[in-house]
Order: sequence, then C-alpha cells, then structure tokens
Amino acid sequence: MKALVFHGPGRSAWESVADPGVEDAADAVVRVGTTTVCGTDLHILRGEVPQVRPGTVLGHEAVGEVVETGSEVRSVRPGDRVLVSCVSACGRCGPCRIARYGRCRGGGGRLLGLLIDGTQAEYVRVPHADLSVHPLPGTVSDRDAVLLADVLPTGHEVGVLNGGVRPGDTVAVVGAGPIGLAAVATAQLYAPERTIAVDLDAARLDTAKRFGADAVVTAEEGPEQLVSDLTGGLGADVAIEAVGVPETFEACTRMVRAGGRVAVVGVHGKPATLHLEELWSRDVTITTGLVDTHSTPTLLRMAAAGRLPVSGLITHDFPLDAMEEAYDVFGGAASTGALKVVLGEEPHDTLATTPGTAVGP
Amino acid sequence: MKALVFHGPGRSAWESVADPGVEDAADAVVRVGTTTVCGTDLHILRGEVPQVRPGTVLGHEAVGEVVETGSEVRSVRPGDRVLVSCVSACGRCGPCRIARYGRCRGGGGRLLGLLIDGTQAEYVRVPHADLSVHPLPGTVSDRDAVLLADVLPTGHEVGVLNGGVRPGDTVAVVGAGPIGLAAVATAQLYAPERTIAVDLDAARLDTAKRFGADAVVTAEEGPEQLVSDLTGGLGADVAIEAVGVPETFEACTRMVRAGGRVAVVGVHGKPATLHLEELWSRDVTITTGLVDTHSTPTLLRMAAAGRLPVSGLITHDFPLDAMEEAYDVFGGAASTGALKVVLGEEPHDTLATTPGTAVGP
Repeated sequence: MKALVFHGPGRSAWESVADPGVEDAADAVVRVGTTTVCGTDLHILRGEVPQVRPGTVLGHEAVGEVVETGSEVRSVRPGDRVLVSCVSACGRCGPCRIARYGRCRGGGGRLLGLLIDGTQAEYVRVPHADLSVHPLPGTVSDRDAVLLADVLPTGHEVGVLNGGVRPGDTVAVVGAGPIGLAAVATAQLYAPERTIAVDLDAARLDTAKRFGADAVVTAEEGPEQLVSDLTGGLGADVAIEAVGVPETFEACTRMVRAGGRVAVVGVHGKPATLHLEELWSRDVTITTGLVDTHSTPTLLRMAAAGRLPVSGLITHDFPLDAMEEAYDVFGGAASTGALKVVLGEEPHDTLATTPGTAVGP
Repeated sequence: MKALVFHGPGRSAWESVADPGVEDAADAVVRVGTTTVCGTDLHILRGEVPQVRPGTVLGHEAVGEVVETGSEVRSVRPGDRVLVSCVSACGRCGPCRIARYGRCRGGGGRLLGLLIDGTQAEYVRVPHADLSVHPLPGTVSDRDAVLLADVLPTGHEVGVLNGGVRPGDTVAVVGAGPIGLAAVATAQLYAPERTIAVDLDAARLDTAKRFGADAVVTAEEGPEQLVSDLTGGLGADVAIEAVGVPETFEACTRMVRAGGRVAVVGVHGKPATLHLEELWSRDVTITTGLVDTHSTPTLLRMAAAGRLPVSGLITHDFPLDAMEEAYDVFGGAASTGALKVVLGEEPHDTLATTPGTAVGP
C-alpha cells in the first residue's frame, strides 16, 4: 500500500510500504477513506516529538471501512464504516476504567502515527478495536466524522468539559484555530450566555461566529477589556486557552473572574508565569490535559442529530495521494487560510469541492 | 472595652475603645471568650494589606457569648455560645446563593479585622449574624471551636475539597503550619490511602503524624523522591501547597501524578513559574482560593462527634489582655515553636495550661 512515512526531521514521503494485517486478536484493519492532518503531525515532522521513530507512518485521524478483524473483536466486523479515534484503549487497565483512555496502560493510548503506524495511508491497523473505532451512523458524512477523531473531542473534553462550561456562563476562547473552533462549537451544547472568540485572524473569527461565538475580537483590539465590559467588570466564567504560548495563557488568567476556570488546550513549548500573588485569593482553577475521547460517542450522536454543525472547519480537500501538498497547505495556514485539510478518495457529502481548492465559508 | 487596635505598619496597642453595639437589624454583638492570631494578622500588622485602615480592631476568629441581637436575627439570641466565623454572609446575593460566602456582595465577606472591627477585643459586632455565627454544641470546647473560625475550614475547603481528595488517594501536604496541619487532619475524613507531610521543622512533622500523616519528610530529605517511591513512580493524587512561596508551588506540580490536582492554600506574594511545557499534556488541575466557610457546620458536627482531633494545633495559651505577648510568640514561631496561640478568659477544656506557657505535644 501507499503511506506517508516519516524519515526524520523535515523529511517524509508518500511511498509504498507493506500492507498492515491483524497482529493481535483485538486488532482491526481499516481501509482509510478519509484522513486529515493535525498540528501534532507538523510537530512530529519538524522533529519535535523524539519518540516518533523514522519509518513510522504518520496520522491519527481517519474514517474508513473495516476489512479485517482479530478473533476477539466484537464491536465491528468487515464492511463496517468506522471512525478511527486518535486514542486506542484496552478498556481493562486502571486509567481505562475511569475513562482516562489517553493514559491507557494496557497497550493503548495515543499510539497511531506516534508509536505505531498511523492513518495517513491506504490501510491502518488499529489495536484494541472494540474501544478504538466507532461504527458510524449513516447520517454523518465521512468529512464530518473525521473531525471527531481528535479535533472535536479535544476541544470538548480538554476545553469545554475541563473548563466546566455551564448554562449561563460567559466563555472566552483564545485562539480560533481548529481546536479553539471545536471548543466554540461544543461549548454551545452547554448553553452558555455568551461565547467570545479571540484570534489574530479575521477569517477565523468569522468561522467562530458561524460556530456559535456571540462576540469576536482580535488580540490587538483588547480582548480583556471586551470580556470585562460584557460581564460588568467580573470577567469570564471560563477561559479556554487554545494557542499554546505563555502570553495567551497569562491573558486567560486575567480574563477569568474570581471563582472561574482556565482550561489549557494549547500545546505549550515554554513555561509561563503564574501570578500567584494575584491569583492565590481569586478561587481560580487551571486545568491542562490531553483528550481521552470518552465523549466521542456522545459527539457522534449529536452530529448525527444535526446538533453539531462542524463542516465549516474543513477548508481544503485533496485526494489521498496528494498528502505532501496537503501538508504544505496546512502548514502554511497563515497564507492559505487553512483550518482542517481533508484527504480522501472523493468528496463524501453534499459540499462538493475541487481537489486542492479552498471551499468557501 | 479593651481591643487590639491597628495603628499603621508595625504599630498596634491593646487599648480602650468604644463598646460595639447593634448597628443593623441583622447584627449580633458577641462577648469574646476566646480568640486567636492568624498569619493574616501578621501581614496586616506589617502593613502588607493596605485596605486595613489605622484604627481598625484586628482579628477574625472568636468564640463567645451573644449579648445583643438585631430585630431580624433568628438563628441565635442573647446567652447563646457561638463561633464567630472569619467570613460573614448575607445569604441573599449571587455568590452566597452558591455558597461562595467569601465573595458575598451583600455586605458580608471577609470583613472582621480587615474592613470592620474584629475579634481581638472584649466584644465584637458581627454583621449578618444568621449566617456568620454558629451556635456551638456543648461537647466542643472553646479552644477547639476557635480553630473552626478559619484554620480548619480553610485547610478543608481550599486544600482538601479543592484538591478533590478521595478514598484511596495519596495526598502530599507541603507545609505543616496551622493550615497545612488542618489540611492533614481534614483529609482523613476522606479516607486517603496515605498522607505525606512535608516541612522544614521536625516538631511540626510530629504534629502532622498525630493528625493522620502516615509519612513525613523534611524539605531537605527529598519529598519528591519519597512521593515517587511510595506511589510506584506515579506521583501524588493530590498535592496541597500550604507555604506560599514559588518553590513549594513548583515542587507540588512535580510531585503530583498525571491526572492529579494541586490545591494552593498558601498566601503568595510573588509569581511562580508554571512549567506548561511539561504540564500541558499531564491532565493536571491547579486551584487557588479563599475559604467560604460553607463547611463549618459539617466540621462542627464532626468535632462534636470526636471525629476531628484538633487540640494539638494549640501550642500556647494567654489571657485576653496579653495580646501583644501572644503576637510576639506567634510571630516568632521559628524560635517559639508556636502553631496556634489562643487567648481567653481561662483554659476551657481538659488540657489545662499555664498562661503563656507552651503546652506539650
């Protein structure tokens, strides 16, 4: 088969590799119909994730068709259309028993495209298939479903659920990239009074509005003042940090009200300053984390019911073998305007697009 | 009456002032039988809490007898023996309705000894008496009860409850002063598997053991290694920071396991470094806060039932008019070994002590 293989920092190729097969009785092999590129893939390709060995097939998000299952797999069978989650889970270990699937100690966790071959390929082997692939309702398109492999559960669990968004809350989402937009969209399931999106990019803020943001503000326009004004000087109930730099984290700790919560979703490479001399008395909660995908079945049901409008996250479509071009477009988001780039055999839903062409808002 | 009056940075005096009376229909006036000195009082006296105006009577913890009540007070009447809480609460405003009494916007909050005259006096006026004083069960001595005015609910709410201590947890308490010891004692109500106390002072660690700590370690002996060894390399489920300096906060973030919680109880004067480059993926929750005293009635019931052994927190007894001496002993804890110093008309329970004399462990 063909797959995108990592060959060390800065080097990858769409090339022929051996077809994967069932290696363990709990495995499934999925023929990839649709996949996408994640910010994590860019980190790996830049050599910033040293545990990824050269020779690994990249990617951890996919929708496809089960073609083979091990003897112990009960939830899916060949022919089933499934979502491949970015997290695999044995379901039996301590962390899995409390739905901390991302920390699975039984041979699961975040494996695909990191520690084992991933989804940017024609076929992928998924360990512990029973808890790691999700049968897809017919009403959810492949292009919508692939967003549920990582982006939407991450925004939902690490942003909205860790942030404890509740009805009537004022929610500030700092950073309107794919994950921040996923937080904006999934926050709406909890009936906040208002959602305020902050970014540098006006186009991303437009998308935030379509996903449910009531107010948007660029970082230069003074988001802290806007949040203060909209809340009578109190501050946001929840601030979701979805950028990954110290400045946005520190802005979130200033934006949040006494008694509020800061949920860090961004991937951080540097320490931040925690102003405990101000925060110690402010009843603030700060959370960090990685997705467990425990909410993926719920999000799938909501998407199937038409209650999770997410198609606008996809800005570019490519055929599967245009992987390197897709990386260039996604990696150059500042000039291409890319949010999520999707690769697949063909456009699978009503929003027909030309391969490699930006789809309109 | 006589009271300890703040006269600006470094200056206070036990002197005659006007007797307080009922000013509002919700007030009660309490004759102070027992009071104590808090670290906050030392901060105020050093001029580090600028909102405290010269002329204010200090103190926010007391046990005494109600001598007068306003016409709207329903919960207590003259003659009742009561605990005066460090937090007053109107019970009607938004924060009070979600038990955030410390943030009362209806004329309550943290007032006594800060914004209005406090408890280090022969009499004190308590606003919003219905929710701000607690009738005392006869089985709780005045000396035990006064610890429930601030120290025990603070360790319990800001440490143990914010930290989410659950049965089977490993809890590390960094700092075994009065608040840290209160966290050690109240953590035992939640059946942790083990409680590890960390301090510089061996005598404080001995007290921690009597309050339920299973393991103690001085800061020099490598608390992080001990926590790691005791948890099979995982780290503590909950780390409670009860010192208030950046080093102990940062140690707590290293001591806690992935998925764990750091509860900051210390009063911080400087920023700390938050190592988001390590923590972003570790599912860590960090909380800060001030006490709301919503748990005071529960703690009172547990103390009455003999299930909250706290007497060892009191190291020194003084008569009420030895206030300045009591401050010296409390402020010089490093040499005097003071934990809580208590002032009162007489020793009220079975642990008879000589005024001004340390009581043995």
